Amino acid sequence: MAELRLRISMSLDGYVAGPNQSVSAPLGEGGEALHEWALALEAWRATHGRDGGEVNASTAVMEGSLEGIGATIMGRRMFGGGPGPWAEPAWEGWWGDEPPFGHPVFVLTHHARPPLVKGSTTFTFVTDGIEAALDAARAAAGGGDVALSGGADVVNQYLAAGLVDELLISVAPVLLGDGERLFANGAGAGTGLEQVEAVEAPGVTHLLYRARR
Amino acid sequence: MAELRLRISMSLDGYVAGPNQSVSAPLGEGGEALHEWALALEAWRATHGRDGGEVNASTAVMEGSLEGIGATIMGRRMFGGGPGPWAEPAWEGWWGDEPPFGHPVFVLTHHARPPLVKGSTTFTFVTDGIEAALDAARAAAGGGDVALSGGADVVNQYLAAGLVDELLISVAPVLLGDGERLFANGAGAGTGLEQVEAVEAPGVTHLLYRARR
Repeated sequence: MAELRLRISMSLDGYVAGPNQSVSAPLGEGGEALHEWALALEAWRATHGRDGGEVNASTAVMEGSLEGIGATIMGRRMFGGGPGPWAEPAWEGWWGDEPPFGHPVFVLTHHARPPLVKGSTTFTFVTDGIEAALDAARAAAGGGDVALSGGADVVNQYLAAGLVDELLISVAPVLLGDGERLFANGAGAGTGLEQVEAVEAPGVTHLLYRARR
Repeated sequence: MAELRLRISMSLDGYVAGPNQSVSAPLGEGGEALHEWALALEAWRATHGRDGGEVNASTAVMEGSLEGIGATIMGRRMFGGGPGPWAEPAWEGWWGDEPPFGHPVFVLTHHARPPLVKGSTTFTFVTDGIEAALDAARAAAGGGDVALSGGADVVNQYLAAGLVDELLISVAPVLLGDGERLFANGAGAGTGLEQVEAVEAPGVTHLLYRARR
């Protein structure tokens, strides 16, 4: 069966976003430091319409994390547009007219909304919970795996339910002190982990684990 | 000046001991999983009077963490013997007649007690706080550095005070879900970290950082 593969950047003290997230600071205070390693990569910039960038030890990790992925699940907070019912004109994501996904994306939300087509990416809004979103993503992935992207709340729900098969945690050398915590409230506790690989790269260390079944 | 070098094992979800620590379970429930990588090493076993063990990628990391160390600081909880005033006969540590330190050890406690000599290690009990313990350890280290060992409470106090120069975090592939958290309550937040090295080894990944001054 298609696997659910988490990939997320985390501070050394366990946060995936800083405190006081807002529309103008979607990663929270200091949270952009978690993603500096990615934004420096040519492999990231090319898929986000930007020139330049580096090739380094993170490149193969990023490419590997995309390999075989046929659909993505994210939370409403990561999709953006603020909390509550969708305003008009409805928020269409952070990614412009050609989002970098290029496959079906499922957004977990409490507020129904018709699917949104942007370039080669269709965003489908799922209001009946994480298992329904996973079923829909698996069906849409065309035999590929499903990427789990964030934010912390949605990821922790999947971890607590024991539904995550692979964890790629990119540890940034920063201590945020507060914010959105991965593994909050014991999410994932007791899951047996197999350490697959650790990759040291400029400004980040990538830790790859598989959940034992 | 002699540096203060933290070395500690941490679960992927940020705990350095499990919940419900007691005299019979000094590492808390599940906490022994944090140290399996170390107990498997010949380098660890030889200094703890045990035969056998492995040589692997952790060996050089452990040897490096001991290199140049002239004194150690630990908390009362790591030294052991339960909370509160010292009972009679007073607890003499977990390490038998020849503790593996072989240099002066400073134990932070609220309860005064005369120094304790065990083999080539002298334990000095410090009741006037982390800065006094660091001053004493530096003076006793004979030009060497000072190791900071745990537990979480003492380490977090040093992190919060900005006194830690080097952080060696050995990340075990386990999710404890609860227990004693490193970096709790924002300890160390805002400290600039330089990622020095990441070492993948059997059952653990060692992350080495330096604090920027």
